[in-house]
Amino acid sequence: MKTGFIQFRPVFGDNTGNTQQMLDLIAPHEADLLVLPELANSGYAFTSKDELASIAEPYDNSPTLDALQAVAKEKNCSMVAGFAEKASEGLFNSAALLRPDGSRELYRKLYLYGAENRFFEPGNLPLEVYDTDAARIGMMICFDWFYPECARVLALKGAQVICHSVNFVLPWGQRGAVFTSLWNRVYMVTANRYGEEKRGEFAFTFTGGSQITAANSDVIATAPLDEDAAVVIDIDPALADDKKLNKYNDLFADRRPEFFKDITDV
Amino acid sequence: MKTGFIQFRPVFGDNTGNTQQMLDLIAPHEADLLVLPELANSGYAFTSKDELASIAEPYDNSPTLDALQAVAKEKNCSMVAGFAEKASEGLFNSAALLRPDGSRELYRKLYLYGAENRFFEPGNLPLEVYDTDAARIGMMICFDWFYPECARVLALKGAQVICHSVNFVLPWGQRGAVFTSLWNRVYMVTANRYGEEKRGEFAFTFTGGSQITAANSDVIATAPLDEDAAVVIDIDPALADDKKLNKYNDLFADRRPEFFKDITDV
Repeated sequence: MKTGFIQFRPVFGDNTGNTQQMLDLIAPHEADLLVLPELANSGYAFTSKDELASIAEPYDNSPTLDALQAVAKEKNCSMVAGFAEKASEGLFNSAALLRPDGSRELYRKLYLYGAENRFFEPGNLPLEVYDTDAARIGMMICFDWFYPECARVLALKGAQVICHSVNFVLPWGQRGAVFTSLWNRVYMVTANRYGEEKRGEFAFTFTGGSQITAANSDVIATAPLDEDAAVVIDIDPALADDKKLNKYNDLFADRRPEFFKDITDV
Repeated sequence: MKTGFIQFRPVFGDNTGNTQQMLDLIAPHEADLLVLPELANSGYAFTSKDELASIAEPYDNSPTLDALQAVAKEKNCSMVAGFAEKASEGLFNSAALLRPDGSRELYRKLYLYGAENRFFEPGNLPLEVYDTDAARIGMMICFDWFYPECARVLALKGAQVICHSVNFVLPWGQRGAVFTSLWNRVYMVTANRYGEEKRGEFAFTFTGGSQITAANSDVIATAPLDEDAAVVIDIDPALADDKKLNKYNDLFADRRPEFFKDITDV
């Protein structure tokens, strides 16, 4: 299958312009699966809940998601995009899977980073794996990677490709994805943004360097640190179904969950 | 507290000589906690269970552990050492905590790597945290790091320092320790061996590069790739009690174990 990422620099609050940026970057490419950054519709540096509420979009009635899904249909390509979501239960840092057939699936970031806690509600949906035409995918958003349990749950549920929409500001995420792939034998498609945002008390520099790691942990695609990028490569998602590290070790068959109960004690 | 590691090249099957190598490397140093490699008494490349049985030592009657513990008492220094263990339940790839007061604690490697499965029984003891005079420590052995749940359980149980006795042959372990520290805000003391072992069908090259990562994930001590090394540095184990990544994120208080139940389903 052909999979890839779109890296760009959203303009804060310009949802229409940001959507057009994404469409322009997608246009020249054919793929089965494309991943777009976190908060791709809105930008990142919110300064109040009111501001976020005025910019966020409803999952079921989102101009950004609708525009992307029209292209998904046209190109027969599933897409995962991060977006600021306005729901009846509150405001969420979310990602949507948009399939060519018009269906979509929702994920809400479980682990909010930094001041996001002041504006967004923490995710309230389980980590799920979804079928697309070309692969079984799971979604994570940015800081979720700091909790290796997130990728583990998705891999245990059968994800072949983890679609990781991010706005990285910390220096470790790209290197960390190598270990997420290594330990779970899944592909990681990390779609980052780049550029700076300075608003109110906040100043963020996003790190670009979007990346794909293979199920064997090799970095098989990477983007520049501070430029638009659309990278599509061929991968074999079935390689993620083989959890054998060598002839003796099947990483999942070897698991010993009975020694891990402290992890799920609440 | 002063903590460190001993890196050396065991000679296969020469338990007495290996013990003397360790004693010689320890002798010039003063420390509160020293970590020694996996299978430090025996070497690694066993070719049969009978051979392993003839070389392994009982936990409660081990010349190697007794000699190390005598030095632990003399120097008032706790030690963690990997050793081939012969027990009534079978043969284990184990580590022992040896305290200056003569008490000791046992851990048996949960995740056997490669052909180890042919010779050793998988560990049958829980991941536990133990008090020493200077810090609360947990033990892991080599391939256990491939399962991030191991370090997570130890950190959740209050470990400040994870004593990681290893015989690394894969290229990722040292870089992976950075993430173990980052995600859990614990110190990792990784004591590796170096050199080659070729026996029967096996040929291993061990990677040296023993390492200490701080609770903030910085690499604060490192050894050469292929030389004896004894490195002792000052650390503050209390830094591992603070799980705050920034003023908004306490990594452990933020955990959401209710989303992780697939990890402990058996």
